[in-house]
Amino acid sequence: MSPVVQVPAQVSATPGALLHHVRTGRAKSRAELVALTGASRNTISNRVDQLIAANLLAEGGRGWSTGGRPPTLLQFNAEAGCVLAVDLGVTSVDVAVTDLSARVLATAGHPIDISAGPVAVLAEAERLAREVLTEAGLRDEDVRSVGVGVPGPVEFSTGRPSHPPIMPGWHDHPIPDAFGRWAAPVFVDNDVNVMALGEMGVGGSVQDVLVVKVGTGVGCGIIVEGRVYRGAQGSAGDIGHIHVPAADGRSVLCRCGNTNCLEALASGASLLRDALAAGLPVTTTRDVVELAAHGDGAALELVRDAGRTIGTVLASLVNFFNPHRIVVTGGVARAGLPLLSGIRESVYARAMPLAARTLDISVSDAPDLSGRVGAALMAIEGYLDEDSVREAITS
Amino acid sequence: MSPVVQVPAQVSATPGALLHHVRTGRAKSRAELVALTGASRNTISNRVDQLIAANLLAEGGRGWSTGGRPPTLLQFNAEAGCVLAVDLGVTSVDVAVTDLSARVLATAGHPIDISAGPVAVLAEAERLAREVLTEAGLRDEDVRSVGVGVPGPVEFSTGRPSHPPIMPGWHDHPIPDAFGRWAAPVFVDNDVNVMALGEMGVGGSVQDVLVVKVGTGVGCGIIVEGRVYRGAQGSAGDIGHIHVPAADGRSVLCRCGNTNCLEALASGASLLRDALAAGLPVTTTRDVVELAAHGDGAALELVRDAGRTIGTVLASLVNFFNPHRIVVTGGVARAGLPLLSGIRESVYARAMPLAARTLDISVSDAPDLSGRVGAALMAIEGYLDEDSVREAITS
Repeated sequence: MSPVVQVPAQVSATPGALLHHVRTGRAKSRAELVALTGASRNTISNRVDQLIAANLLAEGGRGWSTGGRPPTLLQFNAEAGCVLAVDLGVTSVDVAVTDLSARVLATAGHPIDISAGPVAVLAEAERLAREVLTEAGLRDEDVRSVGVGVPGPVEFSTGRPSHPPIMPGWHDHPIPDAFGRWAAPVFVDNDVNVMALGEMGVGGSVQDVLVVKVGTGVGCGIIVEGRVYRGAQGSAGDIGHIHVPAADGRSVLCRCGNTNCLEALASGASLLRDALAAGLPVTTTRDVVELAAHGDGAALELVRDAGRTIGTVLASLVNFFNPHRIVVTGGVARAGLPLLSGIRESVYARAMPLAARTLDISVSDAPDLSGRVGAALMAIEGYLDEDSVREAITS
Repeated sequence: MSPVVQVPAQVSATPGALLHHVRTGRAKSRAELVALTGASRNTISNRVDQLIAANLLAEGGRGWSTGGRPPTLLQFNAEAGCVLAVDLGVTSVDVAVTDLSARVLATAGHPIDISAGPVAVLAEAERLAREVLTEAGLRDEDVRSVGVGVPGPVEFSTGRPSHPPIMPGWHDHPIPDAFGRWAAPVFVDNDVNVMALGEMGVGGSVQDVLVVKVGTGVGCGIIVEGRVYRGAQGSAGDIGHIHVPAADGRSVLCRCGNTNCLEALASGASLLRDALAAGLPVTTTRDVVELAAHGDGAALELVRDAGRTIGTVLASLVNFFNPHRIVVTGGVARAGLPLLSGIRESVYARAMPLAARTLDISVSDAPDLSGRVGAALMAIEGYLDEDSVREAITS
């Protein structure tokens, strides 16, 4: 591609693209598809008919007339199948079954220990998946694809973790094989990339966005013009080990062997450590977050301080990346305002005014759910790619 | 656009796209254009004939036969016009005239002070442009477009600087107006974005690259899959004011009002300041760089130390952005190895192994020239966009 001026992006009119335009709300009728793509009325009509015959589109009601017969509205048939969404965390597994618009039909989950290894953990994820399918009254044949988010780097093309630092025993494990029961494609990605998709939602986005996950560790999903940016080895967004000088000059050893990595100073794990050291009555990070939510002064200050530390790193990234917005998610994001105000304090104090001027920093509306919704969206997009749609309409 | 799985990028077969494919070496004959785009032989033939009639493509020689008549090779007619390339620095102006392949035909430049303001500086740039045109034996009518790089943030769509911190008096000045003599479009961008284009070259790139300019200030051009990434307000890559704790605990005031910004600790300006403080016989940053190049121990250590400081910031950005490569350019990059080894030392010590494993960090082959070549490429791409090409072949 050319460096400055792109050959103009054509709005594609392949069957897969037409389905995409309707599904994401970019076009609602044959006429709008013609206007959007510039393809002929005939071409659009034929392809829409094929998509209706394949049960992927449906006609539903009439739109407003702009003169002449009111157009027949097109709808994506979100019930043409379902997908399984697996959100694997360091300390939890959550599985959902959703329709093809990522609407959750049933979900189940519980605490786990990721270091129990891939065989045990994935067997449990598979069991939960069967459970939610049954609960939703769906059959194995209804499953169109499976999306899995894991808390570590993944080779996206093969679905295998690549030297994940906090998933001992998982390196190179073929995660897709665990879901062989469903003769469906399995898509695996890093949990922060998956959460970033979840935060963008079904309609997607054309903005530049950072989705910062503050869970046991800290990571960042990077969205460039609405698409996940992965980098050269797929490790982009790995901000947990950025070096941060501690404000009080202390030196904290990180599990990676370096000192004063971001997540050694400000993460779910460090919050718990510091809360225990301060003598707070807690046993999990969630307890600390809940104490803060109930207004406990010491817990509040710990959370806000973690926010300040995360904010110092984000201030640098705001200068570098100049995002439209930052969304904070993950377990610690449930703390809400105290975390956010700490982050904002540091970002607005240190980032350049031009980059910070209209920057929106917010906490996810549903930090617990974005992993599952994102995994579902990844599965849906994977299923509805060009080849699958072509196959569906010709078979 | 969809978040995970894109509607497949179609290889466009518009006239502008065909020209682009030939110009960047992606296709060398009608048959290769057919193979690349999937368009019909007839469509390709007609459009190529139009481009030849418009003098943008030329037939040149025969390729290897793969059975049958050997194909006629197509060439981009780089002499169908010329562009003016203006590289404005804080302390220098350089202007070149190039052909449509960014080959420099004539160039001229000299020291200036950007704070003399836009009227005086741009009048001088315009004078130099007339001079190089005459030197190359070209006329005003041969100029197809003008590219200008400036050392500050620019609103790309209007070519006006936006609160540039080191260009007093330039805010909102309509730079394109200064080149009205040539009835040609004028493209203005931040110098680091322009240099990044120059480093990518005519063929472009599909990689993720950081082009770090170490001149009077420090900035970074960000290339995502071969294209300049600008961010929400166009200020992406503004790394000069990222906060860096000084290794020795000192606090250095930056001209922006904050302390210990990257460019307050490691830039051409800080090198000169520290060299003067150390009693070295220098009056410009260039003197310091040349002392180091001649093996002066004190100058070498200052340059290497600047490299180490820049490297601490780049280590964080490597974790975040996971680039394929980093190219260092700008005046201080002329120092070469001592700067590079300082940068590498910090990056490899602090960046995550996965992101650093195959990362290539190098110094520009021609740090003095990348601003002019980049400005020329910006002008050429701007000129050869879809609309202009369509106009050329129908007029």
